[in-house]
Amino acid sequence: MTEGEANTIGVKSEISLKRPAESDSNNITSDAIITKRPVIVPTCKAKLRYSPLKTGLCYDVRMRYHAKIFTSYFEYIDPHPEDPRRIYRIYKILAENGLINDPTLSGVDEIGDWMLKIPVREATDLEILEVHTKEHLEFLSRTPQMTRDQLLKETEKGDSVYFNNDSLLSARLSCGGAIEACKAVVEGRVKNALAVVRPPGHHAEPELAGGFCLFSNVAVAAQNMLKNYPESVRKIMILDWDVHHGNGTQKAFYKDDRVLYISLHRYELGKYYPGTIHGNYDRTGEGKGEGFNCNIPWPCGGLGDAEYLWAFEQVVMPMAREFGPDLVIISSGFDAADGDTIGQCHVTPSCYGHMTHMLKSLARGNLCVILEGGYSLDSIAKSALVVAKVLIGEPPDELPKVKQPKPEAVEIVDTVIKAQSKYWNCFKSTHGNDGCNFKHKVSDTIVNKNFPLQSAIRQQQIKILANEYRFVTLPLFNLGLKDDAVICSPNIYEASSIIVCVHDTPEIWAQRSRVTGMIDPSTSIIIDTTVDVIKWASGRKYGVIDVNIPQSLHEQDNYSAVSIAQEVLVFVWDNYLKFFPLLNKLAFVGIGDAHSGVVHLLGHRDTRSVVKAAISFIDQKPLRPLIPLVDESLADWYYKNSLVFASMENACWGSDDNDQKKPRKKFGRVLKCDTDGLNNNFEERFDEATDFILDAFEEWSDSE
Amino acid sequence: MTEGEANTIGVKSEISLKRPAESDSNNITSDAIITKRPVIVPTCKAKLRYSPLKTGLCYDVRMRYHAKIFTSYFEYIDPHPEDPRRIYRIYKILAENGLINDPTLSGVDEIGDWMLKIPVREATDLEILEVHTKEHLEFLSRTPQMTRDQLLKETEKGDSVYFNNDSLLSARLSCGGAIEACKAVVEGRVKNALAVVRPPGHHAEPELAGGFCLFSNVAVAAQNMLKNYPESVRKIMILDWDVHHGNGTQKAFYKDDRVLYISLHRYELGKYYPGTIHGNYDRTGEGKGEGFNCNIPWPCGGLGDAEYLWAFEQVVMPMAREFGPDLVIISSGFDAADGDTIGQCHVTPSCYGHMTHMLKSLARGNLCVILEGGYSLDSIAKSALVVAKVLIGEPPDELPKVKQPKPEAVEIVDTVIKAQSKYWNCFKSTHGNDGCNFKHKVSDTIVNKNFPLQSAIRQQQIKILANEYRFVTLPLFNLGLKDDAVICSPNIYEASSIIVCVHDTPEIWAQRSRVTGMIDPSTSIIIDTTVDVIKWASGRKYGVIDVNIPQSLHEQDNYSAVSIAQEVLVFVWDNYLKFFPLLNKLAFVGIGDAHSGVVHLLGHRDTRSVVKAAISFIDQKPLRPLIPLVDESLADWYYKNSLVFASMENACWGSDDNDQKKPRKKFGRVLKCDTDGLNNNFEERFDEATDFILDAFEEWSDSE
Repeated sequence: MTEGEANTIGVKSEISLKRPAESDSNNITSDAIITKRPVIVPTCKAKLRYSPLKTGLCYDVRMRYHAKIFTSYFEYIDPHPEDPRRIYRIYKILAENGLINDPTLSGVDEIGDWMLKIPVREATDLEILEVHTKEHLEFLSRTPQMTRDQLLKETEKGDSVYFNNDSLLSARLSCGGAIEACKAVVEGRVKNALAVVRPPGHHAEPELAGGFCLFSNVAVAAQNMLKNYPESVRKIMILDWDVHHGNGTQKAFYKDDRVLYISLHRYELGKYYPGTIHGNYDRTGEGKGEGFNCNIPWPCGGLGDAEYLWAFEQVVMPMAREFGPDLVIISSGFDAADGDTIGQCHVTPSCYGHMTHMLKSLARGNLCVILEGGYSLDSIAKSALVVAKVLIGEPPDELPKVKQPKPEAVEIVDTVIKAQSKYWNCFKSTHGNDGCNFKHKVSDTIVNKNFPLQSAIRQQQIKILANEYRFVTLPLFNLGLKDDAVICSPNIYEASSIIVCVHDTPEIWAQRSRVTGMIDPSTSIIIDTTVDVIKWASGRKYGVIDVNIPQSLHEQDNYSAVSIAQEVLVFVWDNYLKFFPLLNKLAFVGIGDAHSGVVHLLGHRDTRSVVKAAISFIDQKPLRPLIPLVDESLADWYYKNSLVFASMENACWGSDDNDQKKPRKKFGRVLKCDTDGLNNNFEERFDEATDFILDAFEEWSDSE
Repeated sequence: MTEGEANTIGVKSEISLKRPAESDSNNITSDAIITKRPVIVPTCKAKLRYSPLKTGLCYDVRMRYHAKIFTSYFEYIDPHPEDPRRIYRIYKILAENGLINDPTLSGVDEIGDWMLKIPVREATDLEILEVHTKEHLEFLSRTPQMTRDQLLKETEKGDSVYFNNDSLLSARLSCGGAIEACKAVVEGRVKNALAVVRPPGHHAEPELAGGFCLFSNVAVAAQNMLKNYPESVRKIMILDWDVHHGNGTQKAFYKDDRVLYISLHRYELGKYYPGTIHGNYDRTGEGKGEGFNCNIPWPCGGLGDAEYLWAFEQVVMPMAREFGPDLVIISSGFDAADGDTIGQCHVTPSCYGHMTHMLKSLARGNLCVILEGGYSLDSIAKSALVVAKVLIGEPPDELPKVKQPKPEAVEIVDTVIKAQSKYWNCFKSTHGNDGCNFKHKVSDTIVNKNFPLQSAIRQQQIKILANEYRFVTLPLFNLGLKDDAVICSPNIYEASSIIVCVHDTPEIWAQRSRVTGMIDPSTSIIIDTTVDVIKWASGRKYGVIDVNIPQSLHEQDNYSAVSIAQEVLVFVWDNYLKFFPLLNKLAFVGIGDAHSGVVHLLGHRDTRSVVKAAISFIDQKPLRPLIPLVDESLADWYYKNSLVFASMENACWGSDDNDQKKPRKKFGRVLKCDTDGLNNNFEERFDEATDFILDAFEEWSDSE
């Protein structure tokens, strides 16, 4: 009899015992199968590995002895941010909320029902040397014996570190606390653990202290877990949400495939501390470790819950699940927290709770949170309290009003996914094919079977203008551009009024398959705003010059569309416009970045005798100032004779709070559109632009 | 004195008490601020709302009385899937794992330390009428008095439901159990709850039973929570992961903005049960409820963890956090579970654990799991056990090897996000701008400033072929196509060997901004495989005809590229090729869908006197069978004289398990490439293709 059959009988018997009459009446074969053998399930201890355990806590007042030696009263008033009170304030808030029971906050051993004290001890030389060099350990070992002057000298020499005679003790305790916290988790003595330790560790490189960090606590702990628990800990994930890149931790495992290091941090082209390019998205590990390092480098400050949760759900969690760690360590700086003036980000306590909750789902709950940075005492206390509650088992609090992630963040997350899709299956469906069907480098393909889309678009523009308005090429000599860059109407030499339209390659609105990376040409549309200008100008029998500035030239490395626009416009003026015999009214229409060519020309040549108007549509592109090389009054003249239409989203308008911001006169008369997008701006303001030109030409529109 | 100052003093005093000498020596102002006032934190009960509570459990053996009346022995051997043992097996596995303590499985009241029994009661008329019509309730109220024949007749009449004399009792208990489970959560008597109830509810519409469901349990429970707890329950999210669409639940709240209904289900163009279009992604709610209904309709079966987690992280969790529910109810069918033969999906128990864990992060943990479908007794027991463990507080188990989500799933999830981005901020950055900068309809823009990309691409092809090989237009008459569809080499009338290259619009590989929906033409590349063919053929002085089949014509509604390809090829044969005086060797190269034109021609005209070879590169496009209208032997001839290169991912190869599948002869000699993507296939097999043509032409390649 199989188990399934046994169950069947068990069920039936029970039904029949209770309501034999009804059951039987509905069951034509019931008599045959009913027996009176009740099922007995032996009582057993709940098979719950995790829930009966407490959350571990590391804390020791001796880690507060490491402190900056005051050299002025000023340092007392405005203490060093890596302040001994940091760990005290976290311990205190845990007590105030009853998570631990320690009325005097002295670090007692019995701390109540919810958390288990994990005694902190000094990390041994052997443990530290798993990550650090002998020289580095020896240097720190000398600090307890140094004089005040020696300590101040070493503090001066270091990269954002300080030393006193207790630094070694605190650093060894901090590092030992990290090890013991991980050990308690790995050995199953606690469900998870929080190590409230300092000095922090993630900037300490194997051979060097730095960034307030003496020993690389998390790296030392991880290395020792891998060494001492080779059966149960084969893979570790370190998630570093400190606002700074954990250069030390990354370096310790850069060539190691057993440790996946993921860091979210402000990067800003490598300018934000620690100020190197090692925190960039393209640093994905080396050798055996290639693919096991993931940097999510924020391009700016000011980010918050929306961006962190976005990165977690798009990158961190899928990658983590695929990696399948045996232990997760959070390098838990709270300097991205709202209120931290160094980090200037806005991660709320509840967002830390949500991220902790997500990470709890990994590694069968084996999670160890180890304090790194975080310099607002209030912010770190509130954040750590929430993290501790989630570790214990509370659900995270509701998040404050959800915002949408900032575009800059979405884009960098996409870039990270692309870089990582080489290594991780979870990203292959959506980004893995980017470029993967496409082996050739962009640079060598012009004359091959792959050609750049922008040439095709320019061909189409020329075809339309040649067919409808009989446009012809206006040759450029020695500028290194293709002969299709400038074309003009056939009446150009006889025209007294000329419109010069200078534009970027038009925009394409496309449907792109997320799966193949291919776009479907048949449903994709080229949006060419210049056609409207040319149609209008041709209708009034003006001469028209159409200047196309390609956004890049594949064969050239240092191509700049802005400088080409400037060069071409000056060339067209110097070689054509200023010689046209009948020309007395000239207007420019600049579209996109190419408008910088117009502004440049107006500052570098005196065109005032014929130029009556300069219109620009710039959408979200940067404003360009007129540099009045000819004479000072040019800027005023430019302001009077120009209209620059900028998108409502253009950065020149400042943030929402400061709506009154107005660009300076040298940028021309800048007007804010009610719409965003070149096409929409253009539709909104086209009539205003043409009326302005007609006024300037002392003509009037047909409708008036 | 502010709190911050008090802390400072507290800390300092403690430091100084322990190691006064060192502290003082490093602190120039220490004497002034050290006092001996130790901080005392009053002991308090842990401020933990949630962790001290148990998980609620609803179960009552009387819900097993509702059963299908057997009318044949067959029904006993192969019982109705909605089988009374379903809830018994779940209850049993909880006991076997010690989560509950009930050795006789009789539904005792005291069930141990981890779960709290929530007594089940019958739902009252008043409660049921909050969702259902009076008529529906009255009908079910008559079933206890019906005769066996009447019951069988009603069973026959219904849409996949059955009735016996106990159906009303079981259905009222199931519904009452759902209510009581939610109530216990909302009142804070349990941390969360699991209602092991049957019959299920989510297909029962307000006026009608259906799909094994009598009362809409979840809808009735939700409606009553909103009514009875107006202060604490203002918004409810119902997440329905049953493999079927919950049409009943959706209907109950379709116009209600207080309930966000999200369902993941097999849809298959509305063909999968319940078989209506109400489960499609575009059903987003009506009136006040618009934007509060979200269907994630899987286009096929066979999905599993990768797709469910993808949908959760891309759609469910961001939307849920933004909604901010006070209570989350899972309509928890386990028929998407691995092993369920009705659902035919592969969601593993640990994936249910992960999804439950994610949902626990919402609504401050207020989560109620209510059983719906699921028909493999083993699968539902295992799945429910894992869900119960996660509810209690265990971390979810590790997932089996992570696969990448299937492309079909990624695409539908993208479609869902697009549809929902109107309503939810969280989707606006990434999808909200799609089309939003672009107001014009595709159809009216050909002659306007917006033009289709494919014309631009064709212009570029023509320009290259005209410049390099002096290609000219081959006119088409009365086909309604533009004159650029067919072009040919200038020697075409004198050529004895001709290659006809028939292709789709070439692929574009593009970078598209996720934020604006615009692609950057300057970094986008057109990949035109045909250029290689033409270069090769021109080098051998063959005549060449190049046929471009646009993928769509914007002005035409019922355009089919396949039928145009067929028409054009027949036209070219009938009007040109068959009259060319010197032609004696002809080969076709079909690329993409356009190859169907070649296959059509070869079946509809007898071309065997001159056609020596037909090569196709089809990537992932469907195979096209030759239909031998001329005579039966054509199919054999085609097989001998053709090569059809298909991507390794082409659907014609079947699933991975069945690698030996071979397409039939009428599709030509189909060969499997080792690569995916037209460009890659082409590179891999180009030499083989040209050698085949040379053999057929009885010429040999230069390299031989």
